[in-house]
Amino acid sequence: MSSAAPKVTDPKASIAEERKAPSFPIRELTYWVDGDKKITELKERIMLELERDPLWKVSDHPNLTLAETRERAMSKVRRLADLATSRPLQETMLRMSIISVVDPGFWTRFGVHFGLFFGALQGQATPAQLGYWMDKGALSMQGITGCFGMTELGHGSNVAGLETTATLDEKTDEFVVHSPTLTATKWWIGGAAHTATHCAVYAQLIVKGKRYGTKTFVVQLRDTRTFQLMPGVNIGDLGKKMGRDQIDNGWIRFTHVRIPRSHMLMKHTKVTRSGEVIEPALAQLAYGALIQGRVSMVSDSANVAKRALTIAVRYASVRRQFSDGTPGAAETKLLDYPIHQHRLLPLMAQAFAMIFTAREVSANYERLMGVLGELGGDAKGAAVNEAIKDLKETHATSAGLKAFCTWMCLNIIDQCRQSLGGHGYSAYTGLSQAYSDFAVHCTWEGDNTILTLQCGRYLVATALEARKGQPLPGNLSYLKAALSKDGSASTHSCKGNAVEQVSSLDTLKAAWISVAANAIVNAVRDFEAGLAKGMSKDSAYEYSSASRLHAARMHTYTYLLHRFAAQVEQSPASLRPILTLLAQLFGAHSAIQHSGEFLQSGFYTGAQVETLKAFVNHACSEVRKDAVPLTDAFGYTDYVVNSPLGRYDGDVYEKYFELVTSLNPAKPVPYFDSLIKPLLERTNEVETGPELEIDQE
Amino acid sequence: MSSAAPKVTDPKASIAEERKAPSFPIRELTYWVDGDKKITELKERIMLELERDPLWKVSDHPNLTLAETRERAMSKVRRLADLATSRPLQETMLRMSIISVVDPGFWTRFGVHFGLFFGALQGQATPAQLGYWMDKGALSMQGITGCFGMTELGHGSNVAGLETTATLDEKTDEFVVHSPTLTATKWWIGGAAHTATHCAVYAQLIVKGKRYGTKTFVVQLRDTRTFQLMPGVNIGDLGKKMGRDQIDNGWIRFTHVRIPRSHMLMKHTKVTRSGEVIEPALAQLAYGALIQGRVSMVSDSANVAKRALTIAVRYASVRRQFSDGTPGAAETKLLDYPIHQHRLLPLMAQAFAMIFTAREVSANYERLMGVLGELGGDAKGAAVNEAIKDLKETHATSAGLKAFCTWMCLNIIDQCRQSLGGHGYSAYTGLSQAYSDFAVHCTWEGDNTILTLQCGRYLVATALEARKGQPLPGNLSYLKAALSKDGSASTHSCKGNAVEQVSSLDTLKAAWISVAANAIVNAVRDFEAGLAKGMSKDSAYEYSSASRLHAARMHTYTYLLHRFAAQVEQSPASLRPILTLLAQLFGAHSAIQHSGEFLQSGFYTGAQVETLKAFVNHACSEVRKDAVPLTDAFGYTDYVVNSPLGRYDGDVYEKYFELVTSLNPAKPVPYFDSLIKPLLERTNEVETGPELEIDQE
Repeated sequence: MSSAAPKVTDPKASIAEERKAPSFPIRELTYWVDGDKKITELKERIMLELERDPLWKVSDHPNLTLAETRERAMSKVRRLADLATSRPLQETMLRMSIISVVDPGFWTRFGVHFGLFFGALQGQATPAQLGYWMDKGALSMQGITGCFGMTELGHGSNVAGLETTATLDEKTDEFVVHSPTLTATKWWIGGAAHTATHCAVYAQLIVKGKRYGTKTFVVQLRDTRTFQLMPGVNIGDLGKKMGRDQIDNGWIRFTHVRIPRSHMLMKHTKVTRSGEVIEPALAQLAYGALIQGRVSMVSDSANVAKRALTIAVRYASVRRQFSDGTPGAAETKLLDYPIHQHRLLPLMAQAFAMIFTAREVSANYERLMGVLGELGGDAKGAAVNEAIKDLKETHATSAGLKAFCTWMCLNIIDQCRQSLGGHGYSAYTGLSQAYSDFAVHCTWEGDNTILTLQCGRYLVATALEARKGQPLPGNLSYLKAALSKDGSASTHSCKGNAVEQVSSLDTLKAAWISVAANAIVNAVRDFEAGLAKGMSKDSAYEYSSASRLHAARMHTYTYLLHRFAAQVEQSPASLRPILTLLAQLFGAHSAIQHSGEFLQSGFYTGAQVETLKAFVNHACSEVRKDAVPLTDAFGYTDYVVNSPLGRYDGDVYEKYFELVTSLNPAKPVPYFDSLIKPLLERTNEVETGPELEIDQE
Repeated sequence: MSSAAPKVTDPKASIAEERKAPSFPIRELTYWVDGDKKITELKERIMLELERDPLWKVSDHPNLTLAETRERAMSKVRRLADLATSRPLQETMLRMSIISVVDPGFWTRFGVHFGLFFGALQGQATPAQLGYWMDKGALSMQGITGCFGMTELGHGSNVAGLETTATLDEKTDEFVVHSPTLTATKWWIGGAAHTATHCAVYAQLIVKGKRYGTKTFVVQLRDTRTFQLMPGVNIGDLGKKMGRDQIDNGWIRFTHVRIPRSHMLMKHTKVTRSGEVIEPALAQLAYGALIQGRVSMVSDSANVAKRALTIAVRYASVRRQFSDGTPGAAETKLLDYPIHQHRLLPLMAQAFAMIFTAREVSANYERLMGVLGELGGDAKGAAVNEAIKDLKETHATSAGLKAFCTWMCLNIIDQCRQSLGGHGYSAYTGLSQAYSDFAVHCTWEGDNTILTLQCGRYLVATALEARKGQPLPGNLSYLKAALSKDGSASTHSCKGNAVEQVSSLDTLKAAWISVAANAIVNAVRDFEAGLAKGMSKDSAYEYSSASRLHAARMHTYTYLLHRFAAQVEQSPASLRPILTLLAQLFGAHSAIQHSGEFLQSGFYTGAQVETLKAFVNHACSEVRKDAVPLTDAFGYTDYVVNSPLGRYDGDVYEKYFELVTSLNPAKPVPYFDSLIKPLLERTNEVETGPELEIDQE
């Protein structure tokens, strides 16, 4: 017992003291993270415009019904369509990237038309077809709203296995689009339930009884003036989802729906009036759109992680729990607990790794596309081969990055949410919805597990080719030493056990190269063991899938660390110390998570792993000093953070209370008379039945 | 291109073939898992009763609004209250455990009264007080509905730091209950917003200006006839949450609310009429209720994991994706992919580990309480000391089990959900809501991180005491060898690299003991390093928190494996092969997840770890053969599974389609005229302004 009441400490003062002595210039870091001062300023303009636009109120989202959520989303489409067609592309892209954090469900509602439907036209229509659909309003939504009909009830990742058919009727010069089975029902089609007039439908092309694989067809779903469904088109609503209820996913069944032959998108495969099918030479650069989509999901992961960390770190600088026992002392900030630093600050390092990797891989991709563009589509020779080799590597690496970064971000959101304690369970503190909204990133645009296996397959195939003398692409040159030693991948080992030796960025880079090479060599070993057992190539790949997935993970983490380190080297001197520390923390913490690999590869000894653990403890306590300034450098306004617990000014309790009470005003309990009063006032009279004469002995 | 349409394979036939040759008698396993044939039959009776009761319809839950969700939940309270007071306790406990899977939000709504409010009376009231409240209807809800007022806006885990005060007014013989600050507002109080008439309030006892710490007071919140709030009581609604919206969490502020002195629960601390405070001798057995609560959360974790696995495994036996390339061949079942086996089947092993551990630790706890009861509360001597030592160990171990098992289950739910691909994102397939509902288990009844640290602290303290010669409790006897060697914990290493040597249950048990001992010794080392730097004991514990948490994890996994193995040994011969395999898979898979520890402890070499990985591949392919029969043995009816993808008969597509369409019937788009038509028909006339004379040069 103690006679002193516990000391209450002002949360605003608690967060203010965190900003007294940042080790780096905060604004400079914002510019560096955004890429340029002008970008930062444009983002700030966009954030302010959104905040002031009543359409973009987001704080009440948790209290909307499904119907209200969808209508609210639709009310914003027009505003954004007008901006997207009147403002410069860079601004539109930035606006969308901010909306993907503030309002991810709406981002999808809008993106289905602009990204998927219009993207399909851009990528697969001939110039004449594109012009036709543009004239009809397919870009500006003046006449057409589109959706994207790929996935079916029974088929997702295996696009080649889709069941919907598009059969040429040569007599009428039409395609007949048809869903032959229940599992052929188009499913998850965003915008189908409420929004779209047209759909880019993926279907099996059938001409003269022969199947030519999956192609894309534009099918009108609804009359644009009455919104009545077109003949043969049945559509239903998929209703509630885990998240992103702003987008009206639906199912579509086609029953012998006729469309003109010219509604097949014919940039690649063409079908003539006489029913001749002209198939294209292999399109070597078809990777392009896929890579872009995946890289943008790395950026998204980084952007969403930044918001989650802003909330968790700022709250931890304000929330106090347990005192050190000194009578009358203030309780300790969560952020001052080593274990809380361990929970959050390695995640902060992961966010930076994703930020810088997204930027560099994006720049790299544009450089490669530039090289190929300059060389011309039909050019041959060493330079083209080199560029195509690098493009393939980028394609495989981007598959691994998409998978591991979206998983990383999903984990960051949930760890941040859990770090809020009970308040993380409120719908008004932001992270439960963020989790539900983000989770689909691990499934769409390529299921993560399948993507990791694709990446792993590329790594195995490349290692095998290199063993036969093929040159390695730049980002895989680290395999060279491992392969030359035939089986043993360990190219280096760490010298010395001083903390500087074990944890320097150069050592960590070498360490990750060593384990990645080792993991790839092990996957090759398992693949070849499969072959040796008489398996087919495909079966041998399946047989080696666990080690293949593992190789993809090790390669991706290595890639993240190396990209992060490259950006650190280019960064302004004023930022280099904190960024170096974060890069080390990323590399060291990830290494400890996989310490078995580092011990097996022989890069680190057990004693060195212990030193690395001590370094992580130290790095967490150092980053902790800058933790709140780092969230400030992310540059999100309170509107974008959209959580009372993540406010810039730290006034969490007052504003949380205000938000909860304003959204849930006092009302009489609606079912007191019908349910509660009868419960409280009931008497349970037990029915015993009459006493039977026969029992009266 | 191919001219054959892909072969469609009937899902019902696909799952039927999984049941043709189980390696074990399914029904026997159900009895063994449930503990007894009679329990299985009673559970089946309860499941049928729930399924047939229209109140317990759950398939439409995703489509209910918050208001509907809460009203539906309240409509069920009376039914369950009547059953709980008229049926045997064992049946009520079983009914609640089934409801915790079928309808977890309602389970909480009901549990707040029976578990928390009435539990507080049972545990903290004097016999006279308990009788008084029973007479008022505190058990049967005939007159009183209760809630539990512990957590505050600013205080959760640190109960001693709660700010609400209860000050004795000796003149009137009353306590004055008061919330002095905003952060003192009671927060998260389940049942407060809509349901409760009374609250068990945790508040600082203040008598004659002196604070005596946190005690419990019964405060009436509402008039039981009108439901009007009592004077000085303000209550608000916390609104939407991540999950469990069936329970109406609220906030409560007290403004000088007066209650009779006798409303303080005085089983332990007593306050007399004259204001004398009589404090109890230390209650050595206060652990009891905590241990029970934690063990029940291990059972819950197992039960919820069983449902998630039933859905994921059955769907994987039906869903087909990609063919092996043979023209016209059926696509491959997900369950036949080694990577899919790797995703799901180690989780199946984890579920069994939790099932058996919950059972054994529960039995062990009851045995210990029995011993202590027989010896009498005031008994002394070696037997009592021994039992209390074991009880302390059980308390610490149960803290670790609660934390790691709830985390394990949360991960199982999300991995199972992701394994459903896109369909996992539907609200109608069951696992997104299961995740949202379950997540709070990681926070309430002790935040997981804090519990792991408590467990770790106990492990460090016990090791230090043992070094001074104190005997070790039974479950920690494995520390003996490690401690005697002073620093080096490795008591064994694995002999040989044959798969039987590396992966036998005995080897795995020894392996886990070795790493757990090693981890505890490392935590002791870090703790002592802190002391050597001049830190206080508390600070040294904080300093060593990362290795302390790690020690708790290793100890808990060791405990899970050993309990699992003990149950395997006692199991019927017909079940022993499959259970042994599952126990090996649990131990081996967990070991690979932490392979660094096994290499560092010297138990396994790198080559042995590779052998262990090969064993896990093999074990997954073996368990795969029994995967669907194992879900059958869990014994959940389709009603409890509550997901079209987890149906017993495998008819997933038809029933999923039926459910989605029946819950989302076709309706005209409600905002076509107001929003979509104006969008499609708009023309953007750009306002250029008049031509200025000054510009006409």
